[in-house]
Amino acid sequence: MIAPPRIGVAAVHSKASESMPRPDRHKLTVSCLLGLFAFLCLAPFSAMAQAVDPLPSWNDGKAKQSIIKFVEDVTREGSPDFVPKEQRIATFDNDGTLWIEQPMYVQMVFAIDRLRELLPMHPEWRDQQPFKAALDGDFKTLLKDGQGSRNLQTIVGVTHAGMTPEEFEQIVKNWLATAKHPRFHRPYTELVYQPMLEVLAYFRANGFKTFIVSGGGIEFVRAFADQTYGVPTDQVIGSSIVTKFERRDGLPRLFRFPDVNFVDDGPGKPVGIEQHVGRRPIAAFGNSDGDLQMLQWTTESGGRRLGVIVHHTDAVREYAYDKDSLVGHLDLALEAAKLDSWTVVDMKTDWKVIFPFEMKGEASPKP
Amino acid sequence: MIAPPRIGVAAVHSKASESMPRPDRHKLTVSCLLGLFAFLCLAPFSAMAQAVDPLPSWNDGKAKQSIIKFVEDVTREGSPDFVPKEQRIATFDNDGTLWIEQPMYVQMVFAIDRLRELLPMHPEWRDQQPFKAALDGDFKTLLKDGQGSRNLQTIVGVTHAGMTPEEFEQIVKNWLATAKHPRFHRPYTELVYQPMLEVLAYFRANGFKTFIVSGGGIEFVRAFADQTYGVPTDQVIGSSIVTKFERRDGLPRLFRFPDVNFVDDGPGKPVGIEQHVGRRPIAAFGNSDGDLQMLQWTTESGGRRLGVIVHHTDAVREYAYDKDSLVGHLDLALEAAKLDSWTVVDMKTDWKVIFPFEMKGEASPKP
Repeated sequence: MIAPPRIGVAAVHSKASESMPRPDRHKLTVSCLLGLFAFLCLAPFSAMAQAVDPLPSWNDGKAKQSIIKFVEDVTREGSPDFVPKEQRIATFDNDGTLWIEQPMYVQMVFAIDRLRELLPMHPEWRDQQPFKAALDGDFKTLLKDGQGSRNLQTIVGVTHAGMTPEEFEQIVKNWLATAKHPRFHRPYTELVYQPMLEVLAYFRANGFKTFIVSGGGIEFVRAFADQTYGVPTDQVIGSSIVTKFERRDGLPRLFRFPDVNFVDDGPGKPVGIEQHVGRRPIAAFGNSDGDLQMLQWTTESGGRRLGVIVHHTDAVREYAYDKDSLVGHLDLALEAAKLDSWTVVDMKTDWKVIFPFEMKGEASPKP
Repeated sequence: MIAPPRIGVAAVHSKASESMPRPDRHKLTVSCLLGLFAFLCLAPFSAMAQAVDPLPSWNDGKAKQSIIKFVEDVTREGSPDFVPKEQRIATFDNDGTLWIEQPMYVQMVFAIDRLRELLPMHPEWRDQQPFKAALDGDFKTLLKDGQGSRNLQTIVGVTHAGMTPEEFEQIVKNWLATAKHPRFHRPYTELVYQPMLEVLAYFRANGFKTFIVSGGGIEFVRAFADQTYGVPTDQVIGSSIVTKFERRDGLPRLFRFPDVNFVDDGPGKPVGIEQHVGRRPIAAFGNSDGDLQMLQWTTESGGRRLGVIVHHTDAVREYAYDKDSLVGHLDLALEAAKLDSWTVVDMKTDWKVIFPFEMKGEASPKP
């Protein structure tokens, strides 16, 4: 087992780890002997590095131990639990697992801001559901039992379609550059969980490919995943709307249509992983009932597996919620965690810091 | 520009290049100074390596030059055509571009063998189309204008569904281990194009991510892509049938259903690439009209781009076919190649060898 680099405030290190420049690697291939020499020289440094804590923002406890023990077991050559590199697939939910999702899913806030922007062309939305509820910030009506999913799809349809994927990416990037969280007054990309950035980097340093598996829109998440998490666009899996190829003004392009193509949530997550990765993960991280089937499919497959539920228990530094919350609803998956021996992370006690800015000594605003 | 490793008979080297063990990389990160030292030591070797021909199985000529010039232009720092690593995406069709597709698509041969295996349970297939045509090897009827696609889908439906993805992968692997090409009497995985294996390795050595974008079934291609091409399962894009999550006998699993989910051919190829990669490629390789839109979308986007059509012109060492062939039909894309300045590879004159076995001095059987 090799210890990962120490993690700074942002995920810059983890990005470098994912996509180390290939020419540099190649220079080593050119001269095997020198490479072997370098390896032998560096081995003692590597042994030293193991003493560095791979998860410095985690308090010692069952959760931290279970993650480290898992990585050590599947990467130690000769271990009965050893897993070859090409099978080291780890999947991570995004909303509530890697970044904040309260008081409302970030993509929904984006969609509502887009609704407001487009409102002059659609004044009828003021009196028409689900647009009215969205514009009024009436999340209870918006996410009402059994209608939340359809309402969100309707709003995504009118705000996320009608452009090329490149244009949509730019719209998201522009929004992320200016929008701020109502309580933390910071860009959403700063409201990612420092302990989880460390997990991402730790897994990658140990030969894992890390995939984001989001119920959110695949192209929304791709707009920031590389810079924020060190996860390249092709390792992001998510929900999508219909995209078609066409020629317009003599040029080929893709165009986004307001119909659902794929819902990457609940039982859709294992299907999305199969479509994109073609392998069953050996580790999966989630925080809500939307992650239930992903964790079941990952862990109930024989062999050494890791399932992790991030439980939001810290109302002071972040939010405390589970089975009574419409956003990030966690009920069945918490029951399943007992049955399947998943690791349940108690954010309040397991995490020394929640957000990267706390490492600079900046405090969270009071709830 | 860094020269790639020399290519042996199989694609083992390219595989190593794609997935260089991360712990080894990491050891270098641990000690930057030693790394810098090693870099300085190795620089002269790297310069030497540039003299090594990256495409040794290609004859000197326009095609080879255009490929090398493109890679040099987009990887040279400070060049007006420089492309950052994360945008270096290259896509490759499979049938007829990376491996043999005559006298019939390999996956179709597999499907027909499966039909024969399942025939005792479905004796009605003997008199029922398209099964009868498939069982009789009557490819003309099978691929008849306007019906080929539907016929293939029907046959894929009954031969590729009704099991888990893991079970299907094993069925394909077992078949590939025993099936032999009718003319070459070798396993199909030996009938890959040596010059294209070199292109894959050359691109990867220069920081490209290489994706297979096949009209064939995504899980059929994944069963051999890693070992044969050094392309991991998550970098394979292809057509797919519906897969659903379910619990059976108390365990979660995915199950394959006989309905089309996605057709990754023609205008579907750019859509499939967007779904999986989330970026427009800067280089694309194909050989038939099914690759037309992928090459247009790749090259007609401004900036330095590479489009390549592999033209099958060698009836002695392989097959010669284009617009009159039902398999690998090439007509519109050959016209478009002129308009869009794509590189057209003449297999007869541009390739020193076609298959890896020729490098061991073994001759091709006569046509």
